[in-house]
Amino acid sequence: MGRPHRDALFPRSAIDRLTRLVDIDPHVVAEDFDHVPHLAAVEVLITSWGCRPLDDAVLARMPMLKAVVHAAGSVKHHVTEACWDRGLLVSTAAAANAVPVAEYTLAAILFANKRVLEIGGLYREHRNPLDWAAHFPGFGNYRRTIGLVGASLVGRRVLELLRPHDFDILLADPHLDPGAARSMGARLVELDELLAGSDVVSLHAPALPETYHLLDARRLSLLRDGATLVNTGRGSLVDTGALTAEALSGRIHAVLDVTEPEVLPAASPLYSLPNVLLTPHIAGSLGGELLRITGSALDEVERYCTGREFAYPVTRAALTTSA
Amino acid sequence: MGRPHRDALFPRSAIDRLTRLVDIDPHVVAEDFDHVPHLAAVEVLITSWGCRPLDDAVLARMPMLKAVVHAAGSVKHHVTEACWDRGLLVSTAAAANAVPVAEYTLAAILFANKRVLEIGGLYREHRNPLDWAAHFPGFGNYRRTIGLVGASLVGRRVLELLRPHDFDILLADPHLDPGAARSMGARLVELDELLAGSDVVSLHAPALPETYHLLDARRLSLLRDGATLVNTGRGSLVDTGALTAEALSGRIHAVLDVTEPEVLPAASPLYSLPNVLLTPHIAGSLGGELLRITGSALDEVERYCTGREFAYPVTRAALTTSA
Repeated sequence: MGRPHRDALFPRSAIDRLTRLVDIDPHVVAEDFDHVPHLAAVEVLITSWGCRPLDDAVLARMPMLKAVVHAAGSVKHHVTEACWDRGLLVSTAAAANAVPVAEYTLAAILFANKRVLEIGGLYREHRNPLDWAAHFPGFGNYRRTIGLVGASLVGRRVLELLRPHDFDILLADPHLDPGAARSMGARLVELDELLAGSDVVSLHAPALPETYHLLDARRLSLLRDGATLVNTGRGSLVDTGALTAEALSGRIHAVLDVTEPEVLPAASPLYSLPNVLLTPHIAGSLGGELLRITGSALDEVERYCTGREFAYPVTRAALTTSA
Repeated sequence: MGRPHRDALFPRSAIDRLTRLVDIDPHVVAEDFDHVPHLAAVEVLITSWGCRPLDDAVLARMPMLKAVVHAAGSVKHHVTEACWDRGLLVSTAAAANAVPVAEYTLAAILFANKRVLEIGGLYREHRNPLDWAAHFPGFGNYRRTIGLVGASLVGRRVLELLRPHDFDILLADPHLDPGAARSMGARLVELDELLAGSDVVSLHAPALPETYHLLDARRLSLLRDGATLVNTGRGSLVDTGALTAEALSGRIHAVLDVTEPEVLPAASPLYSLPNVLLTPHIAGSLGGELLRITGSALDEVERYCTGREFAYPVTRAALTTSA
């Protein structure tokens, strides 16, 4: 992992815990695998953002390697086919990383249904109360329909967080059956039906070839007038040009933490539209939230050391349908 | 109640339900009590925002009146001492009205700890990513401390909504004992300790003579650097001048749905500071959220009609410590 991630993820208290669990030289942080001491003796690799691919050449230098504990979300960038072929155990902190994304999504949904930011903007502009009900008829968080695209870790956590609120929840996921959706408190529908029937649509699908521009111009046109699109997933899920046109028209609202491209061109209208909240990919773990990931990764190391299975194992098969 | 409230709170479906429960002339909406037919026969009065005080003169014209079902929050503006002297049963929809306020507060807390709106503003300004961790060190929603001032209906609902998140919760309320606070998942502390020890302070105390300017300049100065003050309670709880000075300095952040005065003067810096989100008293029930209040009030009418006690009774004694 990169040195900044090492410093943010592994403060003194985390290193102390690691030292109690395993034999470790806490001064060694491998940003690549070129001049790393002890490599031949490594049994567990703790990785994070910025880890180089664990390809055949790298693996050949770690004959003792048994497990990769990833202190971040997706392992796709560094866990190669060679790792699976070798039978390495792989664990991810994706569940810990899902928590802040789900929290951001929850807050975005609650504020969006109520038009909190739009009303705040109008109040700032007019400095007098207006007839908000006339501006935003039928708004609020009572008996609205929320559509979640993708029962991923984040999607499932959002479902849990939405439970105390008065929402009907639609869920679209090609890998789920209706009973499983029901047990999560949602109704499984086709994506088109979800888009046409929701007041807020939130994207939690992985970036895969088959989800590229999942929301194209046709699908975006299915959104209800006044609906809000929340994207904390991946920018490539949405056709940015088509979304920009819909947002510019004022027909729909959007909360976008990810975009394609990322960063958007400086001239993009999405920066300044009053019906768009744009943030620079901050929904995931940042600041103090990184320590939740640390805790998850160290728990996995402890499970490995005590002969238990990982709580959050990754398998080769699962990667074909997840992030 | 005012005619606009009648139209928003009692759509056709609500009137239909009322008609099944009681003898009612659905065309009669009393904005005052001067020219209202059937007044002498009224047994249950359904009130809402804008109801005139039920004083001796008004009560004298309703000899059959037994109960007041308030389809809104506080009954203090219209339920007079004369009502209590006469032994009227009084019910409130304050619990239903607490829900949207608590939801607004939850979203405000989640966004505030993560600096979502400030980062969105900087991104809009620079149109390039910055080093957010350096701008807002230690930010995020992991293991932060939330201080709630007042275990009111809203305060208790906020406590419930905060439960799934990784927060320590402090609670200040002069009418609560430590055991009761513990059972709500919070630690009871003195107000000064709460202010000094919280990352977000949220106000849920009632407006009473003893809570006027509860947060004065001295108390505001106790807030941590970088702390956020959320006020969805009443503007009079905070000394606006002192708060403005603290916000202008950039030392603290604020989310203000209520202010004193309300509306603020057009020259107030609170409208335009990047570290302040100001909204015009919208956290409570608005738009479709009014129908939650309707449902609560009609449930109470049904309980009365079937000889059961109100689910949300108001007593004279309770009003001395609540809104």
